Amino acid sequence: MNRVEYRRRILEANDAEARVLRERFDEGGVLVVDVVSSPGSGKTTLLEATARALPSALRLGCVVGDIATEMDADRLRAAGMPSHQIVTGGACHLDARLVSDGIEEAGFDTPEDVLPLDVLFLENVGNLVCPASYDLGEDVKVTLLSVTEGHDKPFKYPAIFARAGITIFTKTDLLPYVDFDVELAREQVLALNPSAKVLELSVKEGKGIDTWCALLQEMLDGKRLMEAIA
Amino acid sequence: MNRVEYRRRILEANDAEARVLRERFDEGGVLVVDVVSSPGSGKTTLLEATARALPSALRLGCVVGDIATEMDADRLRAAGMPSHQIVTGGACHLDARLVSDGIEEAGFDTPEDVLPLDVLFLENVGNLVCPASYDLGEDVKVTLLSVTEGHDKPFKYPAIFARAGITIFTKTDLLPYVDFDVELAREQVLALNPSAKVLELSVKEGKGIDTWCALLQEMLDGKRLMEAIA
Repeated sequence: MNRVEYRRRILEANDAEARVLRERFDEGGVLVVDVVSSPGSGKTTLLEATARALPSALRLGCVVGDIATEMDADRLRAAGMPSHQIVTGGACHLDARLVSDGIEEAGFDTPEDVLPLDVLFLENVGNLVCPASYDLGEDVKVTLLSVTEGHDKPFKYPAIFARAGITIFTKTDLLPYVDFDVELAREQVLALNPSAKVLELSVKEGKGIDTWCALLQEMLDGKRLMEAIA
Repeated sequence: MNRVEYRRRILEANDAEARVLRERFDEGGVLVVDVVSSPGSGKTTLLEATARALPSALRLGCVVGDIATEMDADRLRAAGMPSHQIVTGGACHLDARLVSDGIEEAGFDTPEDVLPLDVLFLENVGNLVCPASYDLGEDVKVTLLSVTEGHDKPFKYPAIFARAGITIFTKTDLLPYVDFDVELAREQVLALNPSAKVLELSVKEGKGIDTWCALLQEMLDGKRLMEAIA
């Protein structure tokens, strides 16, 4: 079996596990958001701010993938979001099996196998490459691009931006100090995925959080409506 | 064959190819530098500045790994560094075979199979995870960490910082605007690799380039001296 064939089998197995996860998430009416970016683009910071900004009536949870440390889940728990860290060891991305195991370990489960959550965030490993290939049963992939990384990144890492329903340019408070052309970056994202939503956000300045949270609420309402109709 | 076993075989095959590359680089007295970082930490920008700052008598070359575009090699050629881009497709890291192929395609080769170069840079794919596992026959791995990414990154991506002989904190011009504790980051790097050299650098302000270029020259001189003695 060569490398391409091996990779195809891995991805097929993942897709099968992701289908099971998606059915389960759909039955429970849980909105699932896979958050992807390079290391240090602000995934944990965004999720901390999200936990603080969303209505407290919403039941939130997070499964966090990290190579080696528990630091991110500690930060999210401190922000009031029940979180479970998966230390992936060598793995440079979350896969559906890791998510499934993470949910069990987190104790989100009720005996009836329904997640008692409204929104489940999956904070992926810091990597713009491999997470693009792995379906985690999510409703939407959200890709963060810090303005310090440069506006050329969507075309350089096209798969993840093409698959992201939402792209968020983060750390916009640093725009005065870096060469980042927001319109050029936005054009690249929309060329790769014409239906993508593109947001600008700075946690430091509190900008864009409201828009992001409104979008989450809208997606959750839409999912619940679909469920009620079905 | 399970996933762990498969991965072990891939890495063993890579190590064998890397040994062949290393012998060839050593015979030719070529200093080989593998440059690794997250997307957008400034690999290409550093190499552009390096090409402009090193003595013009030095023969430089670069093999650039990228998922999808040719943009980096174009920038390096414009800075005077002969460069060949390998578009890796899905691969999230360079491996020894890709480097070997890249060298052939680049036409660095003379009929005698000796690379007519003093320093060969390998600009890896933007990724802090997988490049740590792949020996490319290099003399040194250099890991860049942009100060915008946060000082917690060495412990979060320990393998690549442990394996880097040199870690460079880049974009230090942005230090006044971000929460990056240089000493804390340095301590983490040195805890992972006590013999690592840690540099601070800003291409925008022209800081640290001289120290970096002096270090390259020193490594090249050291390699040539070893060769003369052997």
